[in-house]
Amino acid sequence: MSIQTNTRVVLAARPQGKPKPSDFRIERVETGEPGDGELLLQILYLSLDPYMRGRMNAAKSYAKPVEIDGVMEGGTVARVVKSRHPEFSEGDMVLSHSGWQSFALSDGVGLRKLDPVAAPVTTALGVLGMPGFTAYAGLLTIGQPKPGETVVVAAASGAVGSAVGQIARIKGARAVGIAGGAEKCAFVRQELGFDAVVDHSADDFVEQLTAACPEGIDIYFENVGGHVWDAVFPLLNDFARVPVCGLIAQYNTIVESGTDRLPTLMQQVLRRSLTIRGFIQREFADQRPAFYSEMAEWIASGRVRYREDIVDGLENAPQAFLGLLEGRNFGKLIMRVAE
Amino acid sequence: MSIQTNTRVVLAARPQGKPKPSDFRIERVETGEPGDGELLLQILYLSLDPYMRGRMNAAKSYAKPVEIDGVMEGGTVARVVKSRHPEFSEGDMVLSHSGWQSFALSDGVGLRKLDPVAAPVTTALGVLGMPGFTAYAGLLTIGQPKPGETVVVAAASGAVGSAVGQIARIKGARAVGIAGGAEKCAFVRQELGFDAVVDHSADDFVEQLTAACPEGIDIYFENVGGHVWDAVFPLLNDFARVPVCGLIAQYNTIVESGTDRLPTLMQQVLRRSLTIRGFIQREFADQRPAFYSEMAEWIASGRVRYREDIVDGLENAPQAFLGLLEGRNFGKLIMRVAE
Repeated sequence: MSIQTNTRVVLAARPQGKPKPSDFRIERVETGEPGDGELLLQILYLSLDPYMRGRMNAAKSYAKPVEIDGVMEGGTVARVVKSRHPEFSEGDMVLSHSGWQSFALSDGVGLRKLDPVAAPVTTALGVLGMPGFTAYAGLLTIGQPKPGETVVVAAASGAVGSAVGQIARIKGARAVGIAGGAEKCAFVRQELGFDAVVDHSADDFVEQLTAACPEGIDIYFENVGGHVWDAVFPLLNDFARVPVCGLIAQYNTIVESGTDRLPTLMQQVLRRSLTIRGFIQREFADQRPAFYSEMAEWIASGRVRYREDIVDGLENAPQAFLGLLEGRNFGKLIMRVAE
Repeated sequence: MSIQTNTRVVLAARPQGKPKPSDFRIERVETGEPGDGELLLQILYLSLDPYMRGRMNAAKSYAKPVEIDGVMEGGTVARVVKSRHPEFSEGDMVLSHSGWQSFALSDGVGLRKLDPVAAPVTTALGVLGMPGFTAYAGLLTIGQPKPGETVVVAAASGAVGSAVGQIARIKGARAVGIAGGAEKCAFVRQELGFDAVVDHSADDFVEQLTAACPEGIDIYFENVGGHVWDAVFPLLNDFARVPVCGLIAQYNTIVESGTDRLPTLMQQVLRRSLTIRGFIQREFADQRPAFYSEMAEWIASGRVRYREDIVDGLENAPQAFLGLLEGRNFGKLIMRVAE
């Protein structure tokens, strides 16, 4: 049997503020042979997601940080190339969490077989995977949209935001998207069918958002933070719900100078009976079967659409990831690692 | 029929920061006679509560502000002294919302008859009234205490805090109280049976609170804000719940200088999957029947104890209220307006 060369991207250094290419290192190592009960996976697609920025820090979180010199973590679609595991055969396509590399050994734990006929395998990393489920569970369980309510979400052309707005509309709510630039805004409005969209880079962003939400905001699905939060906050209605899924604007640095906004936040939480609730999709794992079946149906019927931004070559992952943190991707960002 | 003289306390001016006696004015006016379908109430007891500070401002809130020259609002226990209403008789005791005055006309709407034999009528303003229900609904519906969890509440000798801790214990949780001064702390620990109590005025308050919560905090029932929040926040466990019921430390002034604590708050909300939820008891009105029956049983069985701080004379209400905002009361503050 030939020995496979595994290309992998490891964390070379913990970023100070904004990550830079030298925080990553590309290595080539030999992959071992699968032992009894193991299988060898060839990674075809790697998902790049904002949460990975958090894993690069040493800080305490719900998930362990990536170790220095450790392989960057991430969801992957892989093909079984060798199997000594009774439940998997050569050629099977699986969803795995193999990280930023081209080959991986697995004992089969946590793998999910994919049916490439039912849906393109890349959707298991996006609309039918973790990002889609994040939108589904956070919006429905925490947000609880009701007909006629206004739901606002930023990064609306992205993997999570696009699903949030479309599910909101399926539930009879009004979806207002926030995106960066004319092209993304046109996509959100015309292709995804949001009721309104606002460009956060516009000079009159605050005025535009206010005009787009004439009856205030009942649910703000928070995945960015920063200046979008400041624009949204005054518009929150009594009993508004804020599922907090991500804060991409402050992953690199937290600015603590200036006005202390905490007392006003708490005052308004009290006066307006607001709910602010952080979450990670994992805690709603029992809803996954319902999600897979509902979302597959919504995609099949055209009620949920999605866009993927596929970039070739694992060695380009660091650059693509840095772009993701700045919103340079357009749709769910996926690296094509192999054909 | 004799004309009654009504003594009433009106809002003379909207306070700038901390209220002062001159923000109130005591007036004496004649009370009219009840018309058909009306009744005349003589106020016996007036409840003084922190929320009233908010009503003195013009700011938008879930409740309308008291108008300038308007009678200060408040819950009251009253005796029916004249009735031209079919459902009420002279001598009936009722819970009303008549405000800071000695007599009031009513059309009967919103009155609740009280049985002085079942419980002392003053409890309808405290443990068996709005404050007790605030504790019950906020803790059980938002906090959802589970056996073995740690529940922290400030103003623990007060009307709401004392009920929060005792209900938490009934649900199998560990209750940690925060109070000001040795006397109140002893009462919370020994009379109310909290598992631990910490004096917020101690120099080593933060260290004491940390030591009192060796397994972190699962529920923080927020009714004070200020430096207590800063001590509690780092101790919140993953999935902690924070029902926000009041913020007495910032009712008079909001200090916005210094470090902006909002980004860190949101970061931790995300990392620790925290829930922060403002509420007013009114939104849980459908739980009131369950509350009345459960709480009456807990009081009868001695599982919930309470303390009242009764002050004589309506004309002393402004001073007593100013003391309440500074924590000078000891137990549920009630004005005795008449015998």
